[in-house]
Amino acid sequence: EWIVICSSEVSHQETTALHAFTVIVIFGGKFTRLPHLAGTEQNLRYAEQIRDEWLEFGLDSVEMVPYDVLLSYPNKSQPNYISIVDQLFKIQNVQSVPPPSHALCGSTGEERHVSWSKGDHYVLRPSRLLGCWSPGTTGSILQVSKGIFVFTCVKSVKHNLCARVQPYPAGWNLPGGGAQRGNVLNLNGAGDPLTPGYPAKDYTYRFSLEDGVGLPKIPVHPIGFHDAIHLLKNMGGQIPPNNWKGALNVSYRIGPGFTDDFKSQKVRMNINTDNKVTRIYNVIGRIRGALEPDRYVILGGHRDAWVFGGIDPMSGAAVVHETVRSAGRLLSKGWRPRRTIVFASWDAEEFGLLGSTEWAEDNAKLLQERAVAYINADSAIEGMYTLRVDCTPSLHTLVYDLTKQITSPEEGEEGVSLYESWHKRDNWTNDRDAPRISKLGSGSDFEAYFIRLGIAAGRARYTKNKKTERYSSYPVYHSVYETFEIVEKFYDPTFKRLQAVAQVRGGLIFLLADSQLLPLDADQYADSLRKYAHSITQLAQTHPEEMKVYEVSFDSLFSAVENFTVAARDFHERLQTLNRADPLQVRVMNDQLMYLERAFIDPLGLPGRPFYRHVIFAPSSHNKYAGMSFPGIYDALFDIEHSADPQKAWEEVKRQISIAAFTVNAAAMTLTPPA
Amino acid sequence: EWIVICSSEVSHQETTALHAFTVIVIFGGKFTRLPHLAGTEQNLRYAEQIRDEWLEFGLDSVEMVPYDVLLSYPNKSQPNYISIVDQLFKIQNVQSVPPPSHALCGSTGEERHVSWSKGDHYVLRPSRLLGCWSPGTTGSILQVSKGIFVFTCVKSVKHNLCARVQPYPAGWNLPGGGAQRGNVLNLNGAGDPLTPGYPAKDYTYRFSLEDGVGLPKIPVHPIGFHDAIHLLKNMGGQIPPNNWKGALNVSYRIGPGFTDDFKSQKVRMNINTDNKVTRIYNVIGRIRGALEPDRYVILGGHRDAWVFGGIDPMSGAAVVHETVRSAGRLLSKGWRPRRTIVFASWDAEEFGLLGSTEWAEDNAKLLQERAVAYINADSAIEGMYTLRVDCTPSLHTLVYDLTKQITSPEEGEEGVSLYESWHKRDNWTNDRDAPRISKLGSGSDFEAYFIRLGIAAGRARYTKNKKTERYSSYPVYHSVYETFEIVEKFYDPTFKRLQAVAQVRGGLIFLLADSQLLPLDADQYADSLRKYAHSITQLAQTHPEEMKVYEVSFDSLFSAVENFTVAARDFHERLQTLNRADPLQVRVMNDQLMYLERAFIDPLGLPGRPFYRHVIFAPSSHNKYAGMSFPGIYDALFDIEHSADPQKAWEEVKRQISIAAFTVNAAAMTLTPPA
Repeated sequence: EWIVICSSEVSHQETTALHAFTVIVIFGGKFTRLPHLAGTEQNLRYAEQIRDEWLEFGLDSVEMVPYDVLLSYPNKSQPNYISIVDQLFKIQNVQSVPPPSHALCGSTGEERHVSWSKGDHYVLRPSRLLGCWSPGTTGSILQVSKGIFVFTCVKSVKHNLCARVQPYPAGWNLPGGGAQRGNVLNLNGAGDPLTPGYPAKDYTYRFSLEDGVGLPKIPVHPIGFHDAIHLLKNMGGQIPPNNWKGALNVSYRIGPGFTDDFKSQKVRMNINTDNKVTRIYNVIGRIRGALEPDRYVILGGHRDAWVFGGIDPMSGAAVVHETVRSAGRLLSKGWRPRRTIVFASWDAEEFGLLGSTEWAEDNAKLLQERAVAYINADSAIEGMYTLRVDCTPSLHTLVYDLTKQITSPEEGEEGVSLYESWHKRDNWTNDRDAPRISKLGSGSDFEAYFIRLGIAAGRARYTKNKKTERYSSYPVYHSVYETFEIVEKFYDPTFKRLQAVAQVRGGLIFLLADSQLLPLDADQYADSLRKYAHSITQLAQTHPEEMKVYEVSFDSLFSAVENFTVAARDFHERLQTLNRADPLQVRVMNDQLMYLERAFIDPLGLPGRPFYRHVIFAPSSHNKYAGMSFPGIYDALFDIEHSADPQKAWEEVKRQISIAAFTVNAAAMTLTPPA
Repeated sequence: EWIVICSSEVSHQETTALHAFTVIVIFGGKFTRLPHLAGTEQNLRYAEQIRDEWLEFGLDSVEMVPYDVLLSYPNKSQPNYISIVDQLFKIQNVQSVPPPSHALCGSTGEERHVSWSKGDHYVLRPSRLLGCWSPGTTGSILQVSKGIFVFTCVKSVKHNLCARVQPYPAGWNLPGGGAQRGNVLNLNGAGDPLTPGYPAKDYTYRFSLEDGVGLPKIPVHPIGFHDAIHLLKNMGGQIPPNNWKGALNVSYRIGPGFTDDFKSQKVRMNINTDNKVTRIYNVIGRIRGALEPDRYVILGGHRDAWVFGGIDPMSGAAVVHETVRSAGRLLSKGWRPRRTIVFASWDAEEFGLLGSTEWAEDNAKLLQERAVAYINADSAIEGMYTLRVDCTPSLHTLVYDLTKQITSPEEGEEGVSLYESWHKRDNWTNDRDAPRISKLGSGSDFEAYFIRLGIAAGRARYTKNKKTERYSSYPVYHSVYETFEIVEKFYDPTFKRLQAVAQVRGGLIFLLADSQLLPLDADQYADSLRKYAHSITQLAQTHPEEMKVYEVSFDSLFSAVENFTVAARDFHERLQTLNRADPLQVRVMNDQLMYLERAFIDPLGLPGRPFYRHVIFAPSSHNKYAGMSFPGIYDALFDIEHSADPQKAWEEVKRQISIAAFTVNAAAMTLTPPA
C-alpha cells in the first residue's frame, strides 16, 4: 500500500483564523488494484468509495455528478488483430484488462500496403477529423494507407538515458510488447463530441456521429515495438533521413509496401471499435467559504485510467484525496477557509477531458463569475529528478514563494528548499534567476477552465531530467505496466517526491482560498506578455520583405503591453495602501485580480477553434500537450507558409495582431481604478 | 427654448446617505437648432458643449471617446435624383440640411421596370446583405428590380387617428413631401460593419467593404408619398389584396412596369452614396460610487440626429443632460451614490447603434463583471397618451413601484399617480392587473448592453394610444419636420410628459445606484419565463403531427422554468433574513442579482447571429424593433415552413429547446446559495 506523508507549515499573516495547515497523504494502492477505465463498473465503484470517504473526512457536501458522453471500447466478441497476408500478429489481449486500443477512431480496414513516417509530435490529417495527437514517449506512426499504427520506440533517441534502463519489471522501461493507449480524436476543447458547448445531460440534444465534432474515419491502433519490427523489417522503398531512424535493428525504409521478396504482402487491420453514449461520474466535494462563499478555488484531477493508472492518474488522485482528508481534519478543529474550496475527481479524462469539460460547461455561468483559480492534479510524477510547474503568469510569484517553504525530497539535500533544489537541477543552461515555469498547454483537465473560461490555472509534478532524458512523458505511459509497484520500486520508493508535489498543490489551494488578498501577481503577467510579444515578433521577422510589403506592424501590440505593464505596476502600488479593514475595498481589488485572467477571453474564440477562447494561450495546433502564446498570431504566421494567397494570409496576421493588442489593452483597463 | 421642470422626491430607506433626489430638467432647443448628423462638425460641437456642461455640473470625470466607423452620406456634388425615362422627379434637397437618403446602401442603378409590395414590417432580401428594416410609420416599398424606394403613407390604415391630423406645421402629421431617413443595413448587433466584435480604434484591423458585415449592393431611397403617387398612378399588372392598399388615390396595381400607355417607361435611380470611415464621439461622464465604485449603473442615449432631432433623440438627450445637472447639484450637497453612475451621449446611433456598440465592445470586459443595469434614453416621446416601458423582467417591480410615486402629467389627472394613469389608459382590454410592460426589441442603443452582454436593461417613453393610432412610431419620424417646435406646439406644450419620463428614467438610475440591495426581482423573471415557454409551445403545437413524428417535447424547458421558479422564490426568501450589516453578505446576494441577466448569455450566440447572445430575448429576425422571446426556438420553428428537409428542421427545433432548457437551468443555479 502507498503511504505518503506530507506535512508542511505555511505561515499565514492575513486572517485571524487558523494559520497553519497540514497535508498528510496516506493513500493506497486500493485505487490501483483493478483496471478502471471510464464508463466501467469499477470506475463507478471507485467514485462511490471516494464520495463516501470525502464525506467521512468532513467536507460540507459531496455529490456524484453524472454525464452521458460518447466513449469507445474495443469490441469484446471480435478482438482486434492485425495480419500480414495470412500471418497473424499476436497482439496483446489480456482478458482481465482492457486490451490496448485507441479511443474514438474508425473501425476496420481493407488490405493495404504499409508506409511509415516519423512522429515525435506529429499531425495526422488523413481525414478532416484527425487532428494532432502526441504520444507520451517518442512515438512513430506506421500508416497503412487508410489506417494508422502508433508504436513507441523507447530506444529511438541518442543519449537517451531511458535506453539504458531495463524493461519492467527489472526496470522502469517499456517492454517490447507494451502499447501506449490514447485518444486520437482532437476535440479542440469541445468536450463530449456529441454535445459541443453544452453539458451532456439526459435532456441535452445530441448530434449524430457525423454532425457533432466528428470522428476519424480510419482505424488507428497502438502496437509495441516488437510488433513494429515485424512490419518494418521487410519494408521497401527509400531510406529516410537519419533523424527519422530509431534504435531498432531495422533499415527504417519508408515504403510504401515491402521489399521485393515480400512485395505481394499487404497488411490488414481488423479493428472493431464500439462507440457508445456511456454514463460517467465526477465526484465533487465542497468546503463552504466562511467570508466569501461565492469565491471558488478548485483542485481537480481525474480518476479514470487506461488500465491500472498507477501513475496516471492515481498518483495525482492520491494528492487530491489526502488534501481532502487534511482539510477535513482542519475543519474538525474549527478552521474554515475564507473562500469556498471545490475538490473534483473527474471521469473520462482519457477520452478527451470529458468529465472536467462537461462540468465546466454545466457550471460555466457560476465559474466565470466566481472562480479564483483551478489547480490541476493529474499524475504527480513523470520522473525522478525535480519539480516541474506549468501555470499562468500571475501564479509564478506564489509558486516561487511557496516552494521556498517546502523541503527538497531528494536524498543528500537535507535542509535545502524545494525551490533551491529545483533551481539548481533545472538550471543546466546557468542563465536563469529562478527555476523555469512553463506555459500551460493542454492534455489534461485544466483545459476548459483555463483556455475556455479564463480561470487562473496551474499544475505541478515531479519530472525527469530534461537534459538527459529526451522523451516526452515516461516510458510505460498509458500502458498496462503503469502500476502502483513501478512507483514504489523505481519512481518514488520513500514517497517523498509525491509528498513534495502534494505540498505544492495543496499549498496553492490553501493560500488561494485563505489569503485575505489574493496571491496573484499582475506584474508577472506583464513580464510574460512582453516576452511573448518579442517572441512572436521575432517569428514574424523571419519574413522581413513581406512585413514591409504588407505593412505588418507589431507596434499596437507593444503599446498595449506597455499599457498593461503600467496598469499592473500602479495596481500593485495601490494595493500597498489598501485599507484592509474595509471588506468592500478588499473585495473590489481582489475582484480585479480574479477577473484579470478572464479579461484575456474572447467569446469569438480562435479561428476554427471556438472553444479555445484565451487570446494569450492555447494548446499548439500542432501538439496539444504544448502551450502556445499569442496562438492567433502564431497560427496565422504558420499558415503563411501554406497559403496560395499571401495577401490574404498576411491580412489575417494583421487582424490577429489587432485582436491581441485590443485584448491586452482591455485587460490593462481591468487593472485601473474602477471609477 | 425648452423648459422642462421635473422634480420628484423618492424616499429611500436603505442608506444613511441622502434620501432624496431631485431631477430638474431645463433643456433647450440649443441642441436642436442645427442639423447634427453623426460624423459632422456640428455633432462634434454639440459633444464638446455637452462635455463642458457635464464637467460644470460637477461630474467626477467626463471624456470624449472617439471611434472611427463606417458612415455614409449622399454625395454633395452629385445629388441623388430619380427619373422616369426623361421626366425628372423633384426630390427634396434642401441645401442647409442633409438631403433625405438611406444610410449604408448601394449606389446608383440601371433603368428598370418598377413593381411594389407591402411592407409594414418587411424583410428585404434582394441580396444576402439586406436584412430587415422597419419604417417608423406605415411604410411601403417600391422596388425597381435592383433598387428600392421606401415611402411613408400616413393615410394608409383605416381608423388611423393620424389620418385626421393636419400635416406639419398646421398639425403633427407628415407632409406629402416628407421622407423618412433610415439605415438599411442590418448589422445584427455587430456595430461598425468593418470591425465586427472589436472597437473601431485607430489600430483596429478593418475588413474591406466586401469582407466585413457587408453592405447592400442595391440602392435604396426614401421618398414622400407625393412622389410615390407619381410612380404608382400609372402602374400596370395585377390588383393586390385589399389589405395591401393604402389611402392614396391610386389603384395600387403591383406591376411590374407601367400600364399600356406608359409601358416603355422605365425608372432610373441616380443614387450616389459615399461610404467612408469617419470619426464619431461618445461623451462619457462618471460619478464614482462611494461604497462600490466597481458597480456601474448606466444612463445612455444618443446625440446624433438625421436632421434636427427635435424628438429623436434630443427629447431623450435632454433627460440625460438634466439628470446629470440634478446629480451634480446633489453631489455639491455632499451626496454620493453607493455605486458608480455612468452617463453616455452616444454618437452614430442612426447608422446602426455604432457609438454605443463600439463602446460596449471597448469596455466589454469591465461591463460584464461590473454593470448592474443599463437604462436607455432615446426619444422621450412618440405620442401624447400614456407611458410606455420596455424592460427586462427583473425590472418590472421597480418600474411599478417607482411609477406609483410619480404624478400623472395629464390634465384632469391631478392627484393621480403615473402608474394609475398608465394602467387605466393602457388597459383597453380590461384584463390586466398592472400596466403592460413589453419585451425589449432593438433599434436603439441598449442593444449591445442587453442582447450581447446580458446587462439588465430598460427604456421608458411617452407614447400614443395604440388602440386608435395604428402606426408605428410617429408621422414625422426621421424627417426634416422633427423639430423642437413640433414638440412644443403639439406633443408636450407644458413639458409635463417629458418631466414624467425624466422622473422614470432618472428614478430608475438613482434607485439602482443607491439602494443597498439591488431592486431587481428574480420572481418576475420566473413569471415571464413561464409565459414565454407557454407561448412558444403553443406556436409549436400548430404542428401536432410533426411534434409526434419527430418526438419534439418541451418538457425539459418547463422543468427548467420550474427549477428557476423555485430558485427565485427561495432566493427572495433568503433575502428577507440577510444580515444587512455585513457588507460581504450583502455584496454576495447583490452579485447574484446583478449576474442573473448575464446567466442568459450564450457565448456561441444565436444561429447566424453571433452578436445576439441572449437566449431569452433577441430582436425579431423579421422586425428588428420587436422583441422575441426564446428567439432560437422561434426562428427554428419559423424555418420549418421554409425547409426542404423537415427532419433536419425539426432536429434544429429540438436542439434549440435543449439550449433554452440548459440556459434556464444554469440561470437557476446562479440563484441558489453559492456554496
